Amino acid sequence: MAQSILPAVRDVTALRDAVRAWRKAGLRVGLVPTMGALHEGHLSLVRAAKERCDRVVASLFVNPRQFAPHEDFERYPRDEGGDSQMLAGAGCDLLFAPERGVMYPEGFATSVIVADVSVPLEGDFRPHFFGGVATVVTKLLLQCLPDVALFGEKDYQQLLVIKKLARDLDIPVEILGCPTVREHDGLAMSSRNAYLSEDERRIAGRLNLILHDAIKAVRHGAPIADAEAEASRHLTAAGFTVVDYVAIRHAETLAPVSDASSARILAAAWLGKTRLIDNMAV
Amino acid sequence: MAQSILPAVRDVTALRDAVRAWRKAGLRVGLVPTMGALHEGHLSLVRAAKERCDRVVASLFVNPRQFAPHEDFERYPRDEGGDSQMLAGAGCDLLFAPERGVMYPEGFATSVIVADVSVPLEGDFRPHFFGGVATVVTKLLLQCLPDVALFGEKDYQQLLVIKKLARDLDIPVEILGCPTVREHDGLAMSSRNAYLSEDERRIAGRLNLILHDAIKAVRHGAPIADAEAEASRHLTAAGFTVVDYVAIRHAETLAPVSDASSARILAAAWLGKTRLIDNMAV
Repeated sequence: MAQSILPAVRDVTALRDAVRAWRKAGLRVGLVPTMGALHEGHLSLVRAAKERCDRVVASLFVNPRQFAPHEDFERYPRDEGGDSQMLAGAGCDLLFAPERGVMYPEGFATSVIVADVSVPLEGDFRPHFFGGVATVVTKLLLQCLPDVALFGEKDYQQLLVIKKLARDLDIPVEILGCPTVREHDGLAMSSRNAYLSEDERRIAGRLNLILHDAIKAVRHGAPIADAEAEASRHLTAAGFTVVDYVAIRHAETLAPVSDASSARILAAAWLGKTRLIDNMAV
Repeated sequence: MAQSILPAVRDVTALRDAVRAWRKAGLRVGLVPTMGALHEGHLSLVRAAKERCDRVVASLFVNPRQFAPHEDFERYPRDEGGDSQMLAGAGCDLLFAPERGVMYPEGFATSVIVADVSVPLEGDFRPHFFGGVATVVTKLLLQCLPDVALFGEKDYQQLLVIKKLARDLDIPVEILGCPTVREHDGLAMSSRNAYLSEDERRIAGRLNLILHDAIKAVRHGAPIADAEAEASRHLTAAGFTVVDYVAIRHAETLAPVSDASSARILAAAWLGKTRLIDNMAV
């Protein structure tokens, strides 16, 4: 069986040459930024990009600046060959896979900081994270200058941060969020699910169900603080080691809310050494 | 006598429409960002842009984010009518003059921070300054997306900060520094020279001469620290109220240097309530 071969570029000049040629031909270009270790969630972004665009670029870069020293940068799963095949199968046209020195050359000194939506929740627990994400995504958007860039709603707060920076810095790219893709038991797909033991994987499936229950409770009139606390207790009872947060917040600003209209529930919890996040519209 | 009328746009969509039309016609576009209160220094940038490009946009925006609360944002000179005529006379094709709400809409929350070259000298004395400059220049570059953007060497450290952010964030615009334009006595042209009394104006002309003397001393073998201290003493003796710094630094990194090859001398000093800066190659 013939395998599709996905062309790959590793520097910004080659990326821009490809995009410029497409634009000259009147084609619309989509970008799907990834850190590799691809799963069906990433592929759904490629397919959504292909529906809206003539050509789709996927980037693959495990960004050291969004990992703290104690986090999993070194063991983060890497498989460019496998990723490349999956991308080609989903209709991707070009892989942009830069080395670290291309992204952060000698003397690199610039950061993009988004204040408000990056402060709570993930910002509390991973204070370095959104600075790293905002900077690398700004770079990827400006390196490629696609018509549209697609990000999963699974990293919901990240999506808000990226929408905010693109608007605030006048980056001429449409930012599109796409629905979380889930396993059969509802577990949000994540490259980090590969870290889970068999036992942990079973427990992991409870996260989305417990958030669904919290949404139901709020819809039936439970006070928001009670629903958050109850969900947190259920996570611990289900076997989660530590619950970083369960929070019902305004879906655009992430500010605390007193009623559930335009709210989102977001959670982060640990299973052993693996940190899982999930979120849903309330 | 017929006066040239410079077309003006006040929002990003109109700016992009104009630039897009020029690009479609195969024209090369230059951008000269200004805070208005124009003088021959700004006009030299417009002329340099016109030499390199087919069309030149000048922006006029007094950026509140680069002024500290105690600084001169309120009294900074403003004369759009006069500026517009001067720009038209120098060959500018379009004025981009956004209101504050266009640049910083409700909920604006993003900053561009350049670490290394923005830390010393001006960064010591105006800690808010380069954050404000880096953010607004990033916006202006991305709003217009010209082929080249031109900045005066009179704000030398600012030029280094802008070159660094454009490279680090992969902004697809060439950043070009242009020589400082000076009055007959060598005083670097600056919108803030308008603040000077007649007496202060006379003293102001000494700044560039004292820096020239320091360069001569270093070239004749004077130790760098001695030349800096001597220049500072001469400024005070000439009538400058406070000397913020006289520093001989590496011309690219602004790091302290032990010899004068690829060095730059930079100074900031006060005359009453007016702060003057100047710099030269050593």
